[in-house]
Amino acid sequence: MSLVIVGSLALDSISTKAGSVKDALGGSAFYASIAASYFHQASIVGVVGDDYPQAGIDLLKKHKVNLEGLETVSGKTFRWSGKYEEWNQADTLNTELNVFANFNPILPSSYRNPKNLLLGNIHPSLQLQVLEQVESYNCVACDTMNYWITGEHQTLSQVIRKMDVVFMNEEEVCQYTGCDNIFKAGREILDMGVKLIVIKRGEYGSVCICKDYMVFMAAYPIEGVVDPTGAGDCFAGGFMGYLASKPKPNKQDIREAALAGTVAAALNVSDFSVNGIANVDKQVIDAKIKQLRDWTS
Amino acid sequence: MSLVIVGSLALDSISTKAGSVKDALGGSAFYASIAASYFHQASIVGVVGDDYPQAGIDLLKKHKVNLEGLETVSGKTFRWSGKYEEWNQADTLNTELNVFANFNPILPSSYRNPKNLLLGNIHPSLQLQVLEQVESYNCVACDTMNYWITGEHQTLSQVIRKMDVVFMNEEEVCQYTGCDNIFKAGREILDMGVKLIVIKRGEYGSVCICKDYMVFMAAYPIEGVVDPTGAGDCFAGGFMGYLASKPKPNKQDIREAALAGTVAAALNVSDFSVNGIANVDKQVIDAKIKQLRDWTS
Repeated sequence: MSLVIVGSLALDSISTKAGSVKDALGGSAFYASIAASYFHQASIVGVVGDDYPQAGIDLLKKHKVNLEGLETVSGKTFRWSGKYEEWNQADTLNTELNVFANFNPILPSSYRNPKNLLLGNIHPSLQLQVLEQVESYNCVACDTMNYWITGEHQTLSQVIRKMDVVFMNEEEVCQYTGCDNIFKAGREILDMGVKLIVIKRGEYGSVCICKDYMVFMAAYPIEGVVDPTGAGDCFAGGFMGYLASKPKPNKQDIREAALAGTVAAALNVSDFSVNGIANVDKQVIDAKIKQLRDWTS
Repeated sequence: MSLVIVGSLALDSISTKAGSVKDALGGSAFYASIAASYFHQASIVGVVGDDYPQAGIDLLKKHKVNLEGLETVSGKTFRWSGKYEEWNQADTLNTELNVFANFNPILPSSYRNPKNLLLGNIHPSLQLQVLEQVESYNCVACDTMNYWITGEHQTLSQVIRKMDVVFMNEEEVCQYTGCDNIFKAGREILDMGVKLIVIKRGEYGSVCICKDYMVFMAAYPIEGVVDPTGAGDCFAGGFMGYLASKPKPNKQDIREAALAGTVAAALNVSDFSVNGIANVDKQVIDAKIKQLRDWTS
């Protein structure tokens, strides 16, 4: 069981400059596991209601995502609706937690010794709860968002102190640390015991900061963004999927993981829901990774 | 005569969050030639008044800048004063053209067959006037600014159509082309016959766009900017200085030129005027280039 991904499965209603969708497949674990699947098999932990579309299950199965940890309970699936006036900022219009309100993630016994564990963007107390059930792992990572940084700062700090890898975007890392410089902010996160902080910079790419080195990665150039929802989840999924495929990741693997996450995120934003990342051949992903590697080294 | 740089020599009065200076040495040709000097000897074309401080001349001489094309005329040197509320945007408080108002750049005969020519950020009609005096060259580049893009669009287009390399920042390339995407905008510039458009992205680095390839470069991480004035000039100077040192630049040389320009710009913004770039050992520059090369490839 080498890559376990915990997070949400949702039905999203989204409006962007490029159009809109209603009740489209989404959620942090959904996006991340599909992005990861191109690099390594993912095992998901999450919950859906009995209204969850079979198409979502079929898509995860098509991507060989292990669904043993996916619970279906009576009630409605988590729903989120949002609108993008700017590409880098969603305005939440409505959130219906539904079955997610009582989500009590229980890891199947086969999940308890993962090689890598990705705690997708959910309430930090749920992230902690999952972590407590794990018996051993090589590498544990978390993603988060501004909502938890302001509302659950202390609990989030408890999570971060246990992490090997933390994903945040520029605003989040500055907001969390109170620093106005991402490199200073990154060092503060490292000082909490984290080995690698991955700072996402939207259209400008990302920077991975470790104690001894940094890895800068450009964003894959995109001329027409359609829907940015899930870009961060796909980045984290692709990144962790690539890392899970390596026995003992070194600096070069971190760079390749950043390439994988970057290309997964770029494909994802080219269409609504997971249409951009779920319906693509591995050869297309590999070609884009090769192209971006060439442009950046 | 392998790198000729045309531009302004100025006395700048600048106020930033980090402090202020009055009548400090500046100007596009001044910054660019000092940055270039670490990679290749520069020959300057410009004008100063009879009040120009000897310290400016001494500094250029220390950097082995050829001053044959530097004219001293009766009157006051060009003065600019500005204030930075944000690091990426100067508010001009005052501009006194002084001797620059009647600047009529005449290239000494020894300058007329340069290998490389950098037309620093000055009125595009002056850039054209210089270009007309050149008999042969390998590579000609120009820098510009929003002021000429809005006020002298047609004349600037005449310049651009004759360029091999164009330096612009993100806002400028979008403003000039009317595109909201830098990659589309870059292609429009290439369609004008330009071989390489270098788009500067401030703290996010730069991207070089050619017909057949791109080169992404991260900015050198800086934790304390003091004065951004001249960053773009130092970038262009370092870039063109490096290119001038290569017999026939290839793709790898473009990447190394971007490294050179990036490190020159980063050093420059660490202090007021040229203090950050003019008083540094070549070994320090080389070490920073090596470090950034490592972080980015």
